Amino acid sequence: MSSNPAGSSSSDNRPIGVFDSGLGGLTVLRALRDAFPTENFLYLGDTARLPYGSKSPETIRKYSEQNLHFLARNDVKAMVIACNSASTQMRDDSFDGKPLYNVIDPGAQAAVKASSRGRIGLMGTRATVNSGAYAEEIKKLKPDFQVFSQACPLLVPLAEEGWDADPVTNLIVYRYLQTLMQEQIDTLILGCTHYPLLAGSIQRVTGSSVALVDSGEAIAELMRNDFTSGRLKKSDSDNGTIRICITDASGPFEGLSRKILGGDAPAPELTNI
Amino acid sequence: MSSNPAGSSSSDNRPIGVFDSGLGGLTVLRALRDAFPTENFLYLGDTARLPYGSKSPETIRKYSEQNLHFLARNDVKAMVIACNSASTQMRDDSFDGKPLYNVIDPGAQAAVKASSRGRIGLMGTRATVNSGAYAEEIKKLKPDFQVFSQACPLLVPLAEEGWDADPVTNLIVYRYLQTLMQEQIDTLILGCTHYPLLAGSIQRVTGSSVALVDSGEAIAELMRNDFTSGRLKKSDSDNGTIRICITDASGPFEGLSRKILGGDAPAPELTNI
Repeated sequence: MSSNPAGSSSSDNRPIGVFDSGLGGLTVLRALRDAFPTENFLYLGDTARLPYGSKSPETIRKYSEQNLHFLARNDVKAMVIACNSASTQMRDDSFDGKPLYNVIDPGAQAAVKASSRGRIGLMGTRATVNSGAYAEEIKKLKPDFQVFSQACPLLVPLAEEGWDADPVTNLIVYRYLQTLMQEQIDTLILGCTHYPLLAGSIQRVTGSSVALVDSGEAIAELMRNDFTSGRLKKSDSDNGTIRICITDASGPFEGLSRKILGGDAPAPELTNI
Repeated sequence: MSSNPAGSSSSDNRPIGVFDSGLGGLTVLRALRDAFPTENFLYLGDTARLPYGSKSPETIRKYSEQNLHFLARNDVKAMVIACNSASTQMRDDSFDGKPLYNVIDPGAQAAVKASSRGRIGLMGTRATVNSGAYAEEIKKLKPDFQVFSQACPLLVPLAEEGWDADPVTNLIVYRYLQTLMQEQIDTLILGCTHYPLLAGSIQRVTGSSVALVDSGEAIAELMRNDFTSGRLKKSDSDNGTIRICITDASGPFEGLSRKILGGDAPAPELTNI
């Protein structure tokens, strides 16, 4: 075991930085922690300015760059944009010389892999749907696939209210998904990090024949390849740590954080970015 | 008719400044325009940082001060904080030497006036409910009155989705109001500027025996007194104008703006504050 914080030359103990507009990205952090339990993570939730999904592309890009600079200043070894709305505006594969991951590319790849008949549905915020980023990426991989999109602005507040196994949520999800179901989609991208919290209601409406694609799991798959290829160096810690920073202390953060990450979720630190 | 923009010595044609975190305050602007049709108005919607209702008191205060400075720089004659969440943090009666109005004080006064049995309900954002500002103000006026509060985080996105005469909205309003109705409230404060858009669903759940208090109308009443007393000078224009500034261009702003203000709603201008 090395006392050098960067680990030995074949390892790198610096954290992986993850940012989201708020809470939702904790579902991505959970997927990464479960996939890479010895890695250290630094999570930034921009709770002072959330949500991003109703804001303009220019504003989302400005906030995202500020968040990435915060992570870079905190000496991370790689950066993950967990927020779908932010990912649509930042598709580069590096930032400040470090590997940069967004949720769109791996989500689109996972959807293409899961789709049996080339009919893919997308649920997302207004910003994510309006950007067309998922459809564009899917068309690059499979030009003959069709993508049907639905903006679902009520689902984030429903997830934050904790109404995740609730008749009201089922009813709203049913209404949002009606058109996509009429298009006979075979795969559905959960294009917002809050939506895995409502996966029960969503799968109840789609039935089991529609495959749900969760960006958190898709991004873990992509990073696993980069650990194997050597683009990313592994930590040599026995146990990874998680540090959570938020830009505003309020709302349901702590309760939802424990719900998503489990009882050992660290208390969030209030941070200026 | 004077060509002096400030009007004659007994009049003042400078606009009344109104700010809100976003769209909801347009219901207050509508009430003020209807009450004072010859006044000019400058409205600021801080759409780049909305919503305020889920954010901390410190962050809400910081954003509110920035918004008031923007209005002051634009030479308004008075300022109105249309946002309930912001009003809980800024209760002074002047700012930068100009009269300052918030929605809490007139809302509490109107509720006390409307209440027949001293049992007042409050619906609001988490920030407004947690602040305790309405209850405190009501207790000052009527120490024996009781106030029962309910945070209703889903109602803003429901109003912005335009689901205002909808079974789903009725169901959610019913769930939020159940406890207040069991407390046999006689008056209900619509403690968020979006809620008048859902007044149909709300009154359906409460029945007609519960009086609904709308902050927009309450604040117009208070300003009418100040025009009479001379604290505010009237405009001597024939027709008032409305200018709308927003800090981010996105989401449902234009559609909702026309829905609230009518077909002659001006196009919003994108502004840095």
